[in-house]
Amino acid sequence: MLNFSFCSPTYFEFGKGTEKEAGALVKRFGTGASGAGAKILLHYGGGSIKKSGLYDRVIASLKESGIAFVELGGAQPNPVSSLVYEGIELCRKENVDFILAVGGGSAIDSAKAIAAGAVYDGDFWDFFCGKGVEEALPVGVILTIAAAGSEGSVNSVITNDKTQEKRGCGGEVLRPTFAILNPELTQTLPPYQTSAGSTDIIVHVLERYFSNTKEVEVTDRLCEAMLKTVIYETPRALENPDNYEARANIMWAGMVAHNNLCGVGREQDWVSHGMEHPLSAFFNATHGAGLAVICPAWMKFVSKINPFKFEQFAERVWDVKGVDEGIAAFEKFLKAIGMPSSMKEFGVREEDIPKLIEHVGVGEEKTFGSYVKLNASDTEEIYKSAL
Amino acid sequence: MLNFSFCSPTYFEFGKGTEKEAGALVKRFGTGASGAGAKILLHYGGGSIKKSGLYDRVIASLKESGIAFVELGGAQPNPVSSLVYEGIELCRKENVDFILAVGGGSAIDSAKAIAAGAVYDGDFWDFFCGKGVEEALPVGVILTIAAAGSEGSVNSVITNDKTQEKRGCGGEVLRPTFAILNPELTQTLPPYQTSAGSTDIIVHVLERYFSNTKEVEVTDRLCEAMLKTVIYETPRALENPDNYEARANIMWAGMVAHNNLCGVGREQDWVSHGMEHPLSAFFNATHGAGLAVICPAWMKFVSKINPFKFEQFAERVWDVKGVDEGIAAFEKFLKAIGMPSSMKEFGVREEDIPKLIEHVGVGEEKTFGSYVKLNASDTEEIYKSAL
Repeated sequence: MLNFSFCSPTYFEFGKGTEKEAGALVKRFGTGASGAGAKILLHYGGGSIKKSGLYDRVIASLKESGIAFVELGGAQPNPVSSLVYEGIELCRKENVDFILAVGGGSAIDSAKAIAAGAVYDGDFWDFFCGKGVEEALPVGVILTIAAAGSEGSVNSVITNDKTQEKRGCGGEVLRPTFAILNPELTQTLPPYQTSAGSTDIIVHVLERYFSNTKEVEVTDRLCEAMLKTVIYETPRALENPDNYEARANIMWAGMVAHNNLCGVGREQDWVSHGMEHPLSAFFNATHGAGLAVICPAWMKFVSKINPFKFEQFAERVWDVKGVDEGIAAFEKFLKAIGMPSSMKEFGVREEDIPKLIEHVGVGEEKTFGSYVKLNASDTEEIYKSAL
Repeated sequence: MLNFSFCSPTYFEFGKGTEKEAGALVKRFGTGASGAGAKILLHYGGGSIKKSGLYDRVIASLKESGIAFVELGGAQPNPVSSLVYEGIELCRKENVDFILAVGGGSAIDSAKAIAAGAVYDGDFWDFFCGKGVEEALPVGVILTIAAAGSEGSVNSVITNDKTQEKRGCGGEVLRPTFAILNPELTQTLPPYQTSAGSTDIIVHVLERYFSNTKEVEVTDRLCEAMLKTVIYETPRALENPDNYEARANIMWAGMVAHNNLCGVGREQDWVSHGMEHPLSAFFNATHGAGLAVICPAWMKFVSKINPFKFEQFAERVWDVKGVDEGIAAFEKFLKAIGMPSSMKEFGVREEDIPKLIEHVGVGEEKTFGSYVKLNASDTEEIYKSAL
């Protein structure tokens, strides 16, 4: 096991009806939300939280706690930089000192980027080009989809809508101070979103599971536990969308999958995410659906070179024997939950592949990934196999 | 799944040589350790940290960071109230504002009790008689044995050496601010302590695993992951005490087992701990060894009344089928790692049982536990079967 530091200080309020705690939690965790003139930014996506009544319940809770707020809606899947700039300007103008994100990974990631940018003199995009985030406004979260794990993570992923680059940044100050997780809020998700969310959770685990670090039984077992949970519960949630218990198990697994408890003490890979990002950026693929195509293609390529972890994956996660059998079981599962198996479904053609590789930023000498280090030719081969 | 709150804000520094970070971490997490006149209390157990050289390394790290300190050694297994009183007095006299515990659960639990008592006007024992802990000095930890999980938990267990009562208390303010976990420090443990530590970890999980809350797959799987890890790694640590990887996996599992990630959203039981406490209090049984006797006896009794969770335990944890077969596999494991199977090994005779039951505080009407609610007669039957 490698040396590591781990700290996951987010306060989680989990369960039915917990969004009514929003006001009280903002008061508890907001640095100065109750101070004179200070207010919070309520940041969310499209109309779904208004249709579902969640918006009204959150507003009522904030008002009950005497929290002043301004609003910014419009965070879209694959959230964009132009909205982040708008949010930063609003925060400065309105003396905002806390951001409450209501939504999925998009609203939360957008909120994190605004939080970092609002207290930074330069261009927030610097943080997505390698600059460390040292300071940010505190962020709280009300989660409406189990997927990105952003509710407990240090990460934010934003698409620059001028350049179409989709990039991530991370920093301990971006971890939400609190996160409200009510599985009921996910019961109205369409099946495709449910499945894409579960796929995202699964791949968050796999990026950490496929590691060359030996003898890390405790995190291996933890990873396998989260995988088995999501594999068991997703079909149950699809079969009966109102199955609260299935939704609850998936939602909590989504947090555990990405607050890095599954990744401590080991090398991590992150090739599948790197290769998926251009699919979202250029073709607006739903992130989890993009991963459903890329991850198995990656597996087939790297398992030939480094089969090390694949037999265990087959046996412990899928209860089958053999490297290829494990991957096949994974593909069969993805198909069963309605995920795509080809980049064609996003409109990607063979002639687009050079553009994808350029976005990944890999070259013949400049490799990425760690389970198997991949160069541009390897990446091309994987993309071709995913057509 | 039941509604729950979860927050585990402790900062963990894990790995080889990490004790050299002690000074820097005290500076980072101590409220005013660098303030004029303020100092920390260095609290530890017997001579082992001096013999091993750990004491010297910690002192060097504190001095390097310019941390002023006073010392209190002498925390024993089943730590006692008289030392807590001594520590409280010392903290007050010396203007201590941070406590650094170096040792196992005993030194840490003792430090937590001192931390709560030092800022409380009344008798600290009030907290062990049901009073809530609202405030405490911050505590940091350097862990030397994987067992109690106190490095990441809200709990402290103290034996009142006037009355021989062994009691616990809990409160969020008692969670360590940081915990240094260096598995190397556990390589010198005698086999009996290694095994008793692993048993304690296992039973921390089992107290949460055996629950009547249905469909809690994510925590069930997590519990099983921690159990499988400790079951696999403990014989490896016994066979080769210097096996760093085995020690590392056990140490991290010990934290995860008891920061309550394994217990969220479900009823918990805690009968085995309740029944073991008098064995430690009156007969000075090593806590884990006491649990090795009590827990299987509890299982045999309750599985007859409520077999619900036992088939899953057998199948998923021990890879056997059948309620009794699972319990038998657990007993076989405990025997193989050198744990006792009878209370006689601690000197308990049948005529001592009424005293044990009185300590548990159970009556014919007043039950305890939740997986199966037990009264005094049930408790007596379990104790008798453990003779």
